[in-house]
Amino acid sequence: MGMFEFIRNLADQQHERVVPISVFVAILCLCLVIGHLLEDNRWVNESIAAILIGCIAGAVILFLSKGKSSHILRFSEELFFIYLLPPIIFNAGFQVKKKQFFQNFITIMLFGVIGVFISASIITVGSWWLFPKLGFVGLTARDYLAVGTIFSSTDTVCTLQVLHQDETPILYSLVFGEGVVNDATSVVLFNAIQKIDVTRVNSRTILQLIGDFFYLFSTSTALGVTFGLVTAYSLKTLYFGRHSTVRELAIMVLMAYLSYMLAELLELSGILTVFFCGILMSHYAWHNVTESSRITTRHIFAMMSFVAETFIFLYVGMDALDMEKWKMTRVRFYAYLSSFLNQFTSVHLTASGIGSVLLVIEKSNSMSPILLHSQSDCSLCFGTLMSSFGSIVLLILLGRAASVFPLSAFSNYMNRRPQRSPSLTFKHQVIIWWAGLMRGAVSIALAFKQFTYSGVTWDPVNAAMITNTIIVVLFTTLVFGFLTKPLIYYMLPHRVIDKNDSSVGSKSPKEDMALPLLSFEESVSTNILRAKDSLTMLIERPVYTVHFYWRKFDDTYMRPIFGGPLSSPPEC
Amino acid sequence: MGMFEFIRNLADQQHERVVPISVFVAILCLCLVIGHLLEDNRWVNESIAAILIGCIAGAVILFLSKGKSSHILRFSEELFFIYLLPPIIFNAGFQVKKKQFFQNFITIMLFGVIGVFISASIITVGSWWLFPKLGFVGLTARDYLAVGTIFSSTDTVCTLQVLHQDETPILYSLVFGEGVVNDATSVVLFNAIQKIDVTRVNSRTILQLIGDFFYLFSTSTALGVTFGLVTAYSLKTLYFGRHSTVRELAIMVLMAYLSYMLAELLELSGILTVFFCGILMSHYAWHNVTESSRITTRHIFAMMSFVAETFIFLYVGMDALDMEKWKMTRVRFYAYLSSFLNQFTSVHLTASGIGSVLLVIEKSNSMSPILLHSQSDCSLCFGTLMSSFGSIVLLILLGRAASVFPLSAFSNYMNRRPQRSPSLTFKHQVIIWWAGLMRGAVSIALAFKQFTYSGVTWDPVNAAMITNTIIVVLFTTLVFGFLTKPLIYYMLPHRVIDKNDSSVGSKSPKEDMALPLLSFEESVSTNILRAKDSLTMLIERPVYTVHFYWRKFDDTYMRPIFGGPLSSPPEC
Repeated sequence: MGMFEFIRNLADQQHERVVPISVFVAILCLCLVIGHLLEDNRWVNESIAAILIGCIAGAVILFLSKGKSSHILRFSEELFFIYLLPPIIFNAGFQVKKKQFFQNFITIMLFGVIGVFISASIITVGSWWLFPKLGFVGLTARDYLAVGTIFSSTDTVCTLQVLHQDETPILYSLVFGEGVVNDATSVVLFNAIQKIDVTRVNSRTILQLIGDFFYLFSTSTALGVTFGLVTAYSLKTLYFGRHSTVRELAIMVLMAYLSYMLAELLELSGILTVFFCGILMSHYAWHNVTESSRITTRHIFAMMSFVAETFIFLYVGMDALDMEKWKMTRVRFYAYLSSFLNQFTSVHLTASGIGSVLLVIEKSNSMSPILLHSQSDCSLCFGTLMSSFGSIVLLILLGRAASVFPLSAFSNYMNRRPQRSPSLTFKHQVIIWWAGLMRGAVSIALAFKQFTYSGVTWDPVNAAMITNTIIVVLFTTLVFGFLTKPLIYYMLPHRVIDKNDSSVGSKSPKEDMALPLLSFEESVSTNILRAKDSLTMLIERPVYTVHFYWRKFDDTYMRPIFGGPLSSPPEC
Repeated sequence: MGMFEFIRNLADQQHERVVPISVFVAILCLCLVIGHLLEDNRWVNESIAAILIGCIAGAVILFLSKGKSSHILRFSEELFFIYLLPPIIFNAGFQVKKKQFFQNFITIMLFGVIGVFISASIITVGSWWLFPKLGFVGLTARDYLAVGTIFSSTDTVCTLQVLHQDETPILYSLVFGEGVVNDATSVVLFNAIQKIDVTRVNSRTILQLIGDFFYLFSTSTALGVTFGLVTAYSLKTLYFGRHSTVRELAIMVLMAYLSYMLAELLELSGILTVFFCGILMSHYAWHNVTESSRITTRHIFAMMSFVAETFIFLYVGMDALDMEKWKMTRVRFYAYLSSFLNQFTSVHLTASGIGSVLLVIEKSNSMSPILLHSQSDCSLCFGTLMSSFGSIVLLILLGRAASVFPLSAFSNYMNRRPQRSPSLTFKHQVIIWWAGLMRGAVSIALAFKQFTYSGVTWDPVNAAMITNTIIVVLFTTLVFGFLTKPLIYYMLPHRVIDKNDSSVGSKSPKEDMALPLLSFEESVSTNILRAKDSLTMLIERPVYTVHFYWRKFDDTYMRPIFGGPLSSPPEC
């Protein structure tokens, strides 16, 4: 009761940020401890725990603030895109096992880029067709395009906590790599959509969208690669470790962050830039620093990423109880219910509730013609919200299936090798399909970007879309995430007993190819011989050949300049 | 020219924080590289380099923005106290060599607490007496008290870059320990002054101030110790490393930050809390984590502290060219000059300059009676500012001397040992005196807190004090800092050649006392014998005896519960 007022007053008195930060940090600590205690639990993982703790904290805050607010920090997409996302993505690039990532590069790109295009189209078209039928109207063409992108970004944190890098390396690298590329693709595609003139959607617009996308994709990647190489080169030539390891650490962290910020400044995709910067840094720069800096960087980046992720899930949990948004989305529902609730709830709560409804109606009368239309249809009642939520989940399932299974078949065709079974079995495909069903922080951030103005919206349709996104994220993370462990245990039952079973596929291709070829003499005849061999190989097994030539180029030119262990192929 | 406008527009378009953060991070990177290249330079150290780079960057920004602004981030004491100071102070506590720190504990406390009281009184009384004589009027009693505190916080970063922990351990631990305690004392004293009723300054007020101070000091320390112990205990019992090292890192970082924020929330001194939390964490918690976490924590905290420090010095450099403040402090001076400058500078600059002067006069007419008074006296002309600056520097020199030399004599008396020369020679005292002459970030932050409202001031007297503080920080860091290396080379000429010379004093006392006593048998007779011995020792050499009993208590009760190596006295 008085507690919240007391904290409020304290906050007003001095630094207004101290209270929310303290509470949030305390809850984060609690989250870490509970996540640790639940580590051996079969059903609940870290993300689910964080969301549930967020919900409980939200309920407590809601109670203390007498129904005014359920969260302590206002979520802004600035906070997310400037402070939380960069460490997560950079760490993803930094920790990815590059050997597997680049061996499966084409498959990952297929899933991560083409997959998003397929899934986004299906969700866009599906929602465009379904929403009006369900009585949910008021979205513009750009909104529908955005919805497609928002619900195409996967969140694979849950799945990665179940899959293990050593036990199922291909699956892990595919799911992990796809998750990152997928996030980046969604953000880039989202930005591309923002720029398009949606009044005239035709085949040229789509071509322009694809063109924009590939321009953003390539320039962002190039920027990230450049930053990674510059960092590696300066660390190598200046040799910072001579004086202090602190300086080389600081340079790595700051350059990584700078690459992200510069990309954002140039309106490129920071997420892609920082991902490739991370890959390049761990491939070259990491080898130029002292031993203790190597240990430290691995852990610093992992820790920052971990904290940022927990922060986001915690926030999602808290936001689930946000009364303002619920009230606004259920304008009619709430007004109808409030007469019944009158005798049960306190006068204060109901009064503020009705007040807010009236305020919304008053505001929207003067502002938005869409609302009037939607209100007369009763389009925003609770049932409509739920059916639109259901249709989004269905479209997600469908869109994901439509991208994973055909692309897996294509990937198996590209990676075909004479005496072997296809590398992606049906069971693997089901796991990849399932792994990409969860929606997470990127979806939320994009939804906030599309449907609010710096975290606030007065339009009921927009508020409904925010609420929809949050329910979808909660539902997919909680329900689908909950079922991931059992599913994987069911699909890969022997993975714990027979550890080497599934890792054979990834180790042998490299060894049976790279080692004999590397021992060839550098003579003209062998060169021709090799060229012939290579050409045959390129046609037969394009993925491995590209990888092989990259390795040669890397060993001959890149590593001597930018750093890294020389002529020790199995290390990578 | 157009560049700045272009960046402005870009910034307005998208996230408004992206541009300043990018530029600042880029300059930080530059700073690190230049600081690294200057490492072997005899004259310039990191802080000076950062300030100079900040000045240059400020000049460039001033030029690009056509005289509008010289910095890209508005300095707020919130930014400083919430984000930059905690890592610096925590790292200080975490990295301090506890053996030397606690052996010299009483001396450090003398310098850090009593020294600040002496220095603050001298500066307060001196400025109160001198300023009106110099024509600088308009400060209230509380302002004078604040000025005393602001200019009593030392910044020993410069000195510590010259002294080496292995070469001159006593000196290093004294200067370092004093620097931290001193910062904390200044902040605590500053806060205590804010609460005091200055209209009736008498002996009771002073007693109340001292009472407030010791209350804040003890509760803050207790909170920090509690947090450190809780972290150590939970790390020990929960054994986080079992699942992931990331979680234990995150817990340490978050708990440290939480201790600071909670202290601020309870209106205690976060700086003291986080310092003792750092000491306790490195003494207990650090021993409960995995090997790689130990390496990582050492480097994470050092890096965060390093970046925060560089950030602050960079900002100080940029702020030195802040036109707004300069214009405001030299209202008359500027108005007088502007007619001359008219023909030299561009119309735009002068017009905006005069505009701002008129604005200031108009604003202040309605607001501040002090200004009218000071303006009629021409009190704010350039000469007055310079003479007030000169008197502050003199008072700093005097105040520091009045605290260091008597306290050193007292410390030598307390630490007296029969057959040895006093541990603090006159040369040491001169170095300690000199090391505490630099003023730094804490002074700036406190000055902003006292003389501005969230970073902005319209009162010329207040603006003059801000400018004064910045000039004092610049002057002491640049000039005194510049002379530190030569002074230490002159005072301790053989320190590089004869490395063990000055470290004898610190190593022997512990060894010749702790080791023989620890080998005694635990019998009644020896206990009595020891008690007798101890009592004699306590009177003769109080400092070492307290330390010895603390070690015994630590080994017997604390370490088994909270972690740390057992029964290995020389490790500490």
